[in-house]
Amino acid sequence: MHGAIDHFLAEDIGHGDITTESIFAVDQEGKAVFVAKDTFVTAGIETVAPLVFARRNPVIVCETVDDGHQARPGDILLTATGPVRDLLTAERLALNLVQRLSGIATLTSKFVAKVSPLPVKIVDTRKTTPGLRVLEKYAVRVGGGGNHRYNLADGVLIKDNHIAACGSICEAVRRVRVRAPHTLKIEVECENLEQVKECLSCGIDIIMLDNMELPTILEAVQLAKGKALLEVSGGVNLHNVRELAETGVDLISVGALTHSATACDISMRFQ
Amino acid sequence: MHGAIDHFLAEDIGHGDITTESIFAVDQEGKAVFVAKDTFVTAGIETVAPLVFARRNPVIVCETVDDGHQARPGDILLTATGPVRDLLTAERLALNLVQRLSGIATLTSKFVAKVSPLPVKIVDTRKTTPGLRVLEKYAVRVGGGGNHRYNLADGVLIKDNHIAACGSICEAVRRVRVRAPHTLKIEVECENLEQVKECLSCGIDIIMLDNMELPTILEAVQLAKGKALLEVSGGVNLHNVRELAETGVDLISVGALTHSATACDISMRFQ
Amino acid sequence: MHGAIDHFLAEDIGHGDITTESIFAVDQEGKAVFVAKDTFVTAGIETVAPLVFARRNPVIVCETVDDGHQARPGDILLTATGPVRDLLTAERLALNLVQRLSGIATLTSKFVAKVSPLPVKIVDTRKTTPGLRVLEKYAVRVGGGGNHRYNLADGVLIKDNHIAACGSICEAVRRVRVRAPHTLKIEVECENLEQVKECLSCGIDIIMLDNMELPTILEAVQLAKGKALLEVSGGVNLHNVRELAETGVDLISVGALTHSATACDISMRFQ
Amino acid sequence: MHGAIDHFLAEDIGHGDITTESIFAVDQEGKAVFVAKDTFVTAGIETVAPLVFARRNPVIVCETVDDGHQARPGDILLTATGPVRDLLTAERLALNLVQRLSGIATLTSKFVAKVSPLPVKIVDTRKTTPGLRVLEKYAVRVGGGGNHRYNLADGVLIKDNHIAACGSICEAVRRVRVRAPHTLKIEVECENLEQVKECLSCGIDIIMLDNMELPTILEAVQLAKGKALLEVSGGVNLHNVRELAETGVDLISVGALTHSATACDISMRFQ
Amino acid sequence: MHGAIDHFLAEDIGHGDITTESIFAVDQEGKAVFVAKDTFVTAGIETVAPLVFARRNPVIVCETVDDGHQARPGDILLTATGPVRDLLTAERLALNLVQRLSGIATLTSKFVAKVSPLPVKIVDTRKTTPGLRVLEKYAVRVGGGGNHRYNLADGVLIKDNHIAACGSICEAVRRVRVRAPHTLKIEVECENLEQVKECLSCGIDIIMLDNMELPTILEAVQLAKGKALLEVSGGVNLHNVRELAETGVDLISVGALTHSATACDISMRFQ
Amino acid sequence: MHGAIDHFLAEDIGHGDITTESIFAVDQEGKAVFVAKDTFVTAGIETVAPLVFARRNPVIVCETVDDGHQARPGDILLTATGPVRDLLTAERLALNLVQRLSGIATLTSKFVAKVSPLPVKIVDTRKTTPGLRVLEKYAVRVGGGGNHRYNLADGVLIKDNHIAACGSICEAVRRVRVRAPHTLKIEVECENLEQVKECLSCGIDIIMLDNMELPTILEAVQLAKGKALLEVSGGVNLHNVRELAETGVDLISVGALTHSATACDISMRFQ
Repeated sequence: MHGAIDHFLAEDIGHGDITTESIFAVDQEGKAVFVAKDTFVTAGIETVAPLVFARRNPVIVCETVDDGHQARPGDILLTATGPVRDLLTAERLALNLVQRLSGIATLTSKFVAKVSPLPVKIVDTRKTTPGLRVLEKYAVRVGGGGNHRYNLADGVLIKDNHIAACGSICEAVRRVRVRAPHTLKIEVECENLEQVKECLSCGIDIIMLDNMELPTILEAVQLAKGKALLEVSGGVNLHNVRELAETGVDLISVGALTHSATACDISMRFQ
Repeated sequence: MHGAIDHFLAEDIGHGDITTESIFAVDQEGKAVFVAKDTFVTAGIETVAPLVFARRNPVIVCETVDDGHQARPGDILLTATGPVRDLLTAERLALNLVQRLSGIATLTSKFVAKVSPLPVKIVDTRKTTPGLRVLEKYAVRVGGGGNHRYNLADGVLIKDNHIAACGSICEAVRRVRVRAPHTLKIEVECENLEQVKECLSCGIDIIMLDNMELPTILEAVQLAKGKALLEVSGGVNLHNVRELAETGVDLISVGALTHSATACDISMRFQ
Repeated sequence: MHGAIDHFLAEDIGHGDITTESIFAVDQEGKAVFVAKDTFVTAGIETVAPLVFARRNPVIVCETVDDGHQARPGDILLTATGPVRDLLTAERLALNLVQRLSGIATLTSKFVAKVSPLPVKIVDTRKTTPGLRVLEKYAVRVGGGGNHRYNLADGVLIKDNHIAACGSICEAVRRVRVRAPHTLKIEVECENLEQVKECLSCGIDIIMLDNMELPTILEAVQLAKGKALLEVSGGVNLHNVRELAETGVDLISVGALTHSATACDISMRFQ
Repeated sequence: MHGAIDHFLAEDIGHGDITTESIFAVDQEGKAVFVAKDTFVTAGIETVAPLVFARRNPVIVCETVDDGHQARPGDILLTATGPVRDLLTAERLALNLVQRLSGIATLTSKFVAKVSPLPVKIVDTRKTTPGLRVLEKYAVRVGGGGNHRYNLADGVLIKDNHIAACGSICEAVRRVRVRAPHTLKIEVECENLEQVKECLSCGIDIIMLDNMELPTILEAVQLAKGKALLEVSGGVNLHNVRELAETGVDLISVGALTHSATACDISMRFQ
Repeated sequence: MHGAIDHFLAEDIGHGDITTESIFAVDQEGKAVFVAKDTFVTAGIETVAPLVFARRNPVIVCETVDDGHQARPGDILLTATGPVRDLLTAERLALNLVQRLSGIATLTSKFVAKVSPLPVKIVDTRKTTPGLRVLEKYAVRVGGGGNHRYNLADGVLIKDNHIAACGSICEAVRRVRVRAPHTLKIEVECENLEQVKECLSCGIDIIMLDNMELPTILEAVQLAKGKALLEVSGGVNLHNVRELAETGVDLISVGALTHSATACDISMRFQ
Repeated sequence: MHGAIDHFLAEDIGHGDITTESIFAVDQEGKAVFVAKDTFVTAGIETVAPLVFARRNPVIVCETVDDGHQARPGDILLTATGPVRDLLTAERLALNLVQRLSGIATLTSKFVAKVSPLPVKIVDTRKTTPGLRVLEKYAVRVGGGGNHRYNLADGVLIKDNHIAACGSICEAVRRVRVRAPHTLKIEVECENLEQVKECLSCGIDIIMLDNMELPTILEAVQLAKGKALLEVSGGVNLHNVRELAETGVDLISVGALTHSATACDISMRFQ
């Protein structure tokens, strides 16, 4: 992450924080704290914020609560001690990242709570912020969720266009098996039960039930449970996730975890 | 943006789209369209999406609606023609960016509509997504808003910690004037009317009225209107923005434009 | 690959090919050919060599035989037409890469021929040249082999140290399942039959039979065939690979494919 | 080398070593050793392996034998102490590099032993692994060899195409002397004695005797010894190198040092 | 600056300082000093030279005089203690930078002295050395000058072509105000008094009096003083700067500060 | 150079040329010319300026005079046709580079004229602008000079500290011969005739006569002419260069060529 953090700092600082450099001497020390202004699950406070400060100036010392901490308004989440110039200059990036990641962890934890204690995993998608995928997928895990594939190379997902081009699911699978490492599972996006059956006939590892109605999902579970992992996808929200979980599927993937989480409210002040 | 787009593509593709490479020949051509699934203001569809496809493969040809277009469900926003492999491989990044940027333009346009036709400008903040600032500030302009400073070097904003360290606003300003290019305006974050008055005494260009109550803002306007630009900041939302605008301030800055906009719904399909 | 090729060109060219720039005018055109001096399977001639020339100067036009072509001494493998300066300056890198990749494809094809037509796959390892992994794994596929995982993130391989730290294979697997994407298979490196049995008890996807004697491998096949993929690893060479293949295992991984292949002999001359 | 090592680590690790991160806590310490499984000359063990570990985590402490050490099976070559996660994650790259570099040093030392104590230098070529030239040329020196030019800018080598384009060697030399820094020697690749004589007539610094028969080389030595450095090149191997050395030439360049050395066998285990 | 310094070091060192590595052992320590050979104002000696040495090897310890120090021949400006290899290898870059920056500070200080104590600021331009803008603008401040805008994004400067394209200054300003952050002042380059008057009519912040004769400047000051900042630009030198300053303008921009300063003489020797 | 030009453009443009983007439409075309305002030798006008425009926008078409052209006030040196936005945005960098490089070529041509037609070469040093070495050494050649080594790796220069550490010149040379490629000449910096004699005794290729008085140089020429290349260095200027050249030395190196050349005057205007 070092290169990415440096790039983000450069974006926010430009050729220098003119205001702060005008006012604070290079050797002036201070102690800043991050304070929660809301109720949320922390993510990045333990791992990312200290790294932001360290990349700005390695002499800054941070103490933090753990990632996964349940924050309440007024909680002190992080204490950073070091040159005031660097604390102020790194402040905005550290906050922007932690607020966003905590937002994702918090939203994930709400989905997870809704389906608890059913044996189903809430997982993310590739609908993450460009440039922040590794961090956002980490935040999903902090919130109690699991990760879907990280990129197009570490997972196989056969979709409608792939199937159409091959004429059948089984032919698509055959072609993929020639090319893909044997260490990757093969997943197929199905839109109906016929496709689910075809998947079973060619030994697919994971079947994605894409935007199916509840009764169809139930039928798919009856057909395929235990023979392949079953993943529900499409239109999942906090209102319908429990219902979907109760069908007996193994996985529910939720794009909203990363594309619709909103920032948690945290501010920095000096002590 | 070329370097950033390449970096984002690498993040999403890894060492290759195994599924797609297994199934489509290198020379297979296709035509894909982006379809709106919702009502929103487009941003990035004209400028960013074609660039994503071009960075993946410069032979891809795109036709698009303009940025700032009012999209309705079913509208075709973009047509991309070229190798199917590259269309599929660049799809997710192009969508992730356009959905996010359109979300920002759409939210901005709602704020702008609320205050119209009052002579006030809705502007953004530095609470943008790390790595996407230039794009997100572009989306704010597409939505009818204006931009605050881009980074810590192209604007001076004197905040509470700066003032405290100097003993007074005027001393802080004096120090900044020595160091800052004369081409930058100087802005001071004020929490009360005393500070507003001190700003006027030392010729500040912009006064930020930070988290002030409505009556205080009104007094500040009476004191300072025409002598400095007046910017309201803090806790602005779609419900109170009109009221704030009617006070007569010049600018209203809204962090939510970039940190709380949600993605618009767009999908890609082949024709 | 563009960035890597540029980096390799810079390494070989430095601030300029002084000899060639002294002698050839900028606009002097020529036609160069790559000639096989040996018998081998080509890899990179179709995909990598033209890219090297194109990165040096996009106006160079290449015609080539296909990757996977069976070359014989005297065969013309590539014709490149363009500025003489650029042909000479890119020559060494293009040759260095194609000779190495063809060496890997050729060695792989020998292993594959030895086990044909048994239903077993010859696969590579992570013992590749630093910086060239994607290219070398491509060459293995050209030679008829398959790929093992590309890196530590796109496959799970539980080894002795991991097992020792957890106390048991099943505990190691349990911990991995919490963290790893469900799209990845889990592989365990086993040194004896007890471990193979433990793997079966916790539903492992792939069992690596590490440096086992032939009779032990046969027992392992009897125990586990069809319940998990079976991969033989360690000390595999052209003399023993057939024998290993006949045990009925699914995969044989061979580090030598990439760390012990020697360069094929190809030279460039002008026509 | 820092940038290159970081790049290689990223290639091997991807977004993280999922297996190891699942099992070992961040703060678990361990001690690993590199053990020789064969007889060879070490290269990189003192200089490159500790750098790989340090780039992964600067707290790792390494003790090593020297580069140029004569290793025997069972020898402990390196001890690395630090976080287990980082030891395991950097293991493969450190081994891949040291095994390759030791292979080069070992092969070079065999060529050097063959010609000892004759006053001739065994030197490398530009047939190195793309991206590893500086390291591989270092390994050649560790093995007792010398370096030819590093790239096309730090040496002048006039070859057949250059001569043909100019009409004569002397004209080629004249053009080069206008352009090249006076700090570089000029070398000409000769295929026959006529060319050797022409070289002497225009004051060439180094004459390469390219793929010449032994009697021709002997004649060339008689003609030119002491007037220019004489370098034999082409088809040199361990069987003919002594014979070539005894002709009295100054330098013998051997592409095989870098393109045909095979990896030495080293493994890592925990103590 | 770290990345830039590393890049400059790589440019000067290539794959290694062969002379120094041949002669000095890796662990040989030494103490080097920078000695002034001339009279000048130091810039970079305190801030840039130590960074150059630290990027080469962080164990090097430097003591220096302050930037802005008035150096006299024989003055010791910097003492660096550490490995001799690294001191010698970083010497040239450290000197090249400090000599250039001190040259800029010295020339600036001469302009500043000429206009003292008039209330006018000597400022730089964008005529800086590509790649060194931030450092050179720092040197201008060290010499007592001020900075004009850093780049095309952090200042608005409407020139003749812009005006011509819009038909009038006021129309150009109107268009800029839509697009530019409100935090930037707007400057217009004027060639005559008519343009100055038009600027005043549309509330411009800064008026550049471009290559005007002295009487015209005096008239412009009478017209506009106190209504906008007045900047003189074009053909300024040490002979006419006092005269220009006495007109009462606020700013005098001088391209020569950065494009015509010559290097100060400093040498390194060992103690 | 592509990477460097992109970096320089980014430095000058920041996130965008706000003025120009506010005023000119994306598709507005124009034709700009570079006009000489002075008498000088052009360098970079043919090679670097068109590259700057092309990196900004590849559709821009340039026609130029040749590098090495003798420019006179009013001469049109370059015509660039393309989008006005890109012409204006790339203008400053193109001018900054061409003015600087032409300054170097012009100064070099003056030194060369002074020594003509004596058989001596005027050469540069490593006192170049950090980041611009390759361009500046090119400009020296355009002006009729030659290049000294490019960096610490492509030439050997033994200086006083190296000699002191070894006890003698011959010992220093011995150590260097073990390590350095045989393709590099060895140069020694001598301060007196004793050292010149020692150089001759150990077969040095180039002897640098460092800051010697004229009579000493004459003695050195008598001693060493024809046995080694003789290079004069230190305190060379346009007044003493002829006198130095007449001593019969082979090379005169002049730091001032690059560190004291001043920018030539060129401006851009639209047609």
